[in-house]
Amino acid sequence: MMETLITKPLNSTLTEEEIYTHACEVLPGGISRNTVFRKPHPSYAASASGCYITDIYGVKRIDFANNMASLIHGHAHPAIVDAAVEQIRNGTAYTLATQAEVLLAQLLCARVPSFDKIRFVNSGTEAVMAMIKASRAFTGRPKIAKAEGAYHGTYDFVEVSQLANPTNWGDINSPNKVPLVSGTPQGVLDDVVIFPFNDTERTLALLDQYADEIACLIIDPVPHRVGLIRANDEYITALYNWTRKNGALLAFDEVISFRTNYEGAQENYAVKPDITALGKIIGGGFPVGAIAGSSEIMKVLDPREPNLRFPLSGTFSANPLTMTAGRIAMEMFGQEAVSNLNALTQKAIDQIEQAVKIAGVPVSVTGSGSMFKIHLKAKPPVTYREAYEGKELNALSTQLINHLYNENIIMTNSCSCMFSTALGQKEVDMLTEALLSGFRLIKPELEKLHK
Amino acid sequence: MMETLITKPLNSTLTEEEIYTHACEVLPGGISRNTVFRKPHPSYAASASGCYITDIYGVKRIDFANNMASLIHGHAHPAIVDAAVEQIRNGTAYTLATQAEVLLAQLLCARVPSFDKIRFVNSGTEAVMAMIKASRAFTGRPKIAKAEGAYHGTYDFVEVSQLANPTNWGDINSPNKVPLVSGTPQGVLDDVVIFPFNDTERTLALLDQYADEIACLIIDPVPHRVGLIRANDEYITALYNWTRKNGALLAFDEVISFRTNYEGAQENYAVKPDITALGKIIGGGFPVGAIAGSSEIMKVLDPREPNLRFPLSGTFSANPLTMTAGRIAMEMFGQEAVSNLNALTQKAIDQIEQAVKIAGVPVSVTGSGSMFKIHLKAKPPVTYREAYEGKELNALSTQLINHLYNENIIMTNSCSCMFSTALGQKEVDMLTEALLSGFRLIKPELEKLHK
Repeated sequence: MMETLITKPLNSTLTEEEIYTHACEVLPGGISRNTVFRKPHPSYAASASGCYITDIYGVKRIDFANNMASLIHGHAHPAIVDAAVEQIRNGTAYTLATQAEVLLAQLLCARVPSFDKIRFVNSGTEAVMAMIKASRAFTGRPKIAKAEGAYHGTYDFVEVSQLANPTNWGDINSPNKVPLVSGTPQGVLDDVVIFPFNDTERTLALLDQYADEIACLIIDPVPHRVGLIRANDEYITALYNWTRKNGALLAFDEVISFRTNYEGAQENYAVKPDITALGKIIGGGFPVGAIAGSSEIMKVLDPREPNLRFPLSGTFSANPLTMTAGRIAMEMFGQEAVSNLNALTQKAIDQIEQAVKIAGVPVSVTGSGSMFKIHLKAKPPVTYREAYEGKELNALSTQLINHLYNENIIMTNSCSCMFSTALGQKEVDMLTEALLSGFRLIKPELEKLHK
Repeated sequence: MMETLITKPLNSTLTEEEIYTHACEVLPGGISRNTVFRKPHPSYAASASGCYITDIYGVKRIDFANNMASLIHGHAHPAIVDAAVEQIRNGTAYTLATQAEVLLAQLLCARVPSFDKIRFVNSGTEAVMAMIKASRAFTGRPKIAKAEGAYHGTYDFVEVSQLANPTNWGDINSPNKVPLVSGTPQGVLDDVVIFPFNDTERTLALLDQYADEIACLIIDPVPHRVGLIRANDEYITALYNWTRKNGALLAFDEVISFRTNYEGAQENYAVKPDITALGKIIGGGFPVGAIAGSSEIMKVLDPREPNLRFPLSGTFSANPLTMTAGRIAMEMFGQEAVSNLNALTQKAIDQIEQAVKIAGVPVSVTGSGSMFKIHLKAKPPVTYREAYEGKELNALSTQLINHLYNENIIMTNSCSCMFSTALGQKEVDMLTEALLSGFRLIKPELEKLHK
C-alpha cells in the first residue's frame, strides 16, 4: 500500500525518471510489460498518430514496432477512430450478442480458405490456449508439440523451451524441455514435445516417439523469437503429412504472422492448418484473439451440442468495440494494401542490405511480408540455434536499437521491424540511414566478436 | 470458408433470426460467448446507455447483468466516454510505457492494504493464470487447491470440478476431480486439489494430504457459480492459518467480488490474501485483468532481478485506453458510491424477500455487496452441493429469467443481478414487480418439485 498519488495531470511536467520512480512503488520493476522495459527507465508515450509516436517531452519518433506488430495501419487511423468513438458512445460490452461479431467473423471466414468458423477471445495468449484445448477436446489426446525457441504467449504448455540457450537446450536430436517460469509443474513438461524448427528429419523422429499422444503440432510459420525465419515449404508439408498419418491436428499460430499475406502466412503453403490462432492486427488496435478452423473441429465449442466438449466464455470476448475496429482495419487491409505494404517492406530490406554492404558488417536480414529482423550474423540463420544470439551479440543488438531510438526510430526489442500502412518511402529512407550509422557504430565490436 | 457477407448495414432491418442464421455459418453455435446464448437465438444489442440496453428492434431493457458484473457505472457513462474518446484519438497501444498505467496502479494500491504492487493483463482468465504462475514461482510448488464448483476463468487447472454434479462429484470427504473440457491432461488433474467450499473441517483434512506440494489456495470469497455465497469468516481464517503453517499462499480471486466493498470482498475478513486476481470493473468497460499482492511475492515479475522467475508480457496489457477508463471508473466508485450502491442492492433484496413471502414460494436470496442470486430453494444454501440446482430447477430458473426478459429486465443466465450505479429505486421496483409475477408463474411447478 502506498499513500501518495501523482498529483500532476497526465502529460505533466514530471520527468520520465520521476514517473518511473513513482511506477516502481506500485509496479514490479516499474513496468507493466517486459517488452517496454528499457534501461535506465522506459520511455513514456503521450500520443501517437499514423507512423509517429510522441513522448511526454514532445519528441516524435517513427514507429517500426507498431505495438509488437499489432497495428497494421499505425496509430489512430481516422476511419478506425471514428468507428471506435461511435461504438463507445453506444456502449462497449453487453450481456447480449451484437452484429459486430458476425460481421468480423464473416470477413475473416470469407478471407481464408481454412477458416470455416471462428471464436473470438481477448488476446493471443487466450487464443493459443483455446486452440490447444480445442485440439485436446477434438482428439482426446493430452500432448502438444512445439518448436524450440518459439513464442506462443503465456500459457505454460507453450512456454516450454521458449528461452532455451546453449547451457540448457541439450542434444539437438532430443532437445531438453526447458521451463520458462519457476515452479512450472512437471506434468506440464511431460505433456510437451520440443522439436527443432525447420529440421524435418529430427522433428519427425521426435514426433514419432509420441505418435499416439499428440493432440496438435503448434507452428508459427514465421516465428519471431526463433529468428523471424520462414518455415520451409517442405517442412510444413512434412508436418502436415505426419498429422494426417497420426491423427493429430496441424495448428498454426498466426497471431503475428497473419499480417504477412492476405490469407495469412498459410497462403504460402500448399497444405493448410486444421486450426489457426489469431490476434494482434485483427482487433484494429484493441485487445483481441481468436481461433478459426474447420467446422468439424470448431464444433467442440458449440453449446447446442448434447455433449459440449469445450465450454468457453469470456467477459470481454467479441466485445463490439474490438469487433468493429477490427473489421474496419481488416477491410482497409485488402489484397492491394497487403501487396503495397509488403513491397515497401521489401524495399526497406533491399536498402538495409545495401547499407550492410556499404558498412561492411556481418549482418543479415530475415523475415516475411511486412516484418523483418536484423541479425548480427553474416549468414541469415535458418534454425533457432543458428539464430541464437548469446550475451555479447545481444548487447550489441541492444546498442543498435538504442542508437536508432536516439535517431528517433523505434524498433522492437528484438531488433525487428513490423511495418504499418502509415509508413512511406521517406520513413524507410530514415530507417536505412540510421541503420547505416548504427552499423558503423557497432562495427569494431561486432568484428571482434566474429573473429 | 463462406462466400456471402451480410450486405445490409449495422442496425439494419435484418431480424434477429436472420442475423443468427448468418452467425451460425461463421461462429460455432452462432455465438461468441456461451453466456449470451439463448434459445432459439441470442438477442442482439444495438446500443446502451446508463442502466438500459436497446436491442436492434428498439426495445429498451433494464440491465441487471452489466456484462457479467463488469460495468459498475452501467453503459457509456459520460465521464468514461469522454476520457476514452480522448485516449483513442491519441492512440490505443504503443510499444512504450504510459503514465496511465502508473495512475491506475497508484489508485488501486492506495485503496487496498494487501496491494503493494500490481501487474495488469487483459482478462480475468489471464489474471488467474498469472496469479497461479506467480504462486508457483514464489513457492516452487506445483499444486493448487480450489473449491468445488468455483469458476475462475478458463485456465485448465482452475476449471477442474467447475461443473461437478451429483453423478460425478463423489464423496464430500474427497471430492472427485471432474474435468470440464474433454481431453484435459491427467497431469492437470493431478496438480489440483478440490475442497468443499465453506466446510472448514473437510477442507483442512484434504489440504493436509498435500501440505508440502500446494503453491496456493485459490478462493473467490463470494463465488458466483458456487451459488453467490459469502465465505464464512471462520472459514477464511482457517484457510489463512493453514497457509501460514504450511508455506502456501492465500490467493483471492476478486475478479467479480472486488465490487462488493471499497477494498473488495477482502475488506470483510480479519485476515488478508497474499495475492489477488482482479478484472471486470477495474477496466471501466474495456478488457482488463490484474494481479496484486505483497512486494515480496510480486518481485517474481521484476525484470530487473538477476534471476527473473516469471517473465510476463502481453501485447495489450496495460493499454492506455483500459488504464484510463479504469481509473475514471474507479475514481467514481469511492467509499460513498460503494455504500450507496450496496444499500440500493440490499433494498432490492429486501423487496424481493417480501415478494417471495407474498407469492408464497420456496425461494431464497444470497449475495454480498452489489450482487445477489435468486435460488429456487426455501433455505439459502451455504455450500456448492446445497446450491446445486439440477435439471428441473434449472429449467424453472431459465423460465423465470425469460419471463423477466419479456418484462424488459435482463438478469444473468444464472439468475443473479449485478448492480450498477446507474440503477435507481424505480428500476428496483420494476425488478421486484417482475419477479413477483415470475414467482407466481413458476409457483405450481416449483411446489411440485419441492414435494
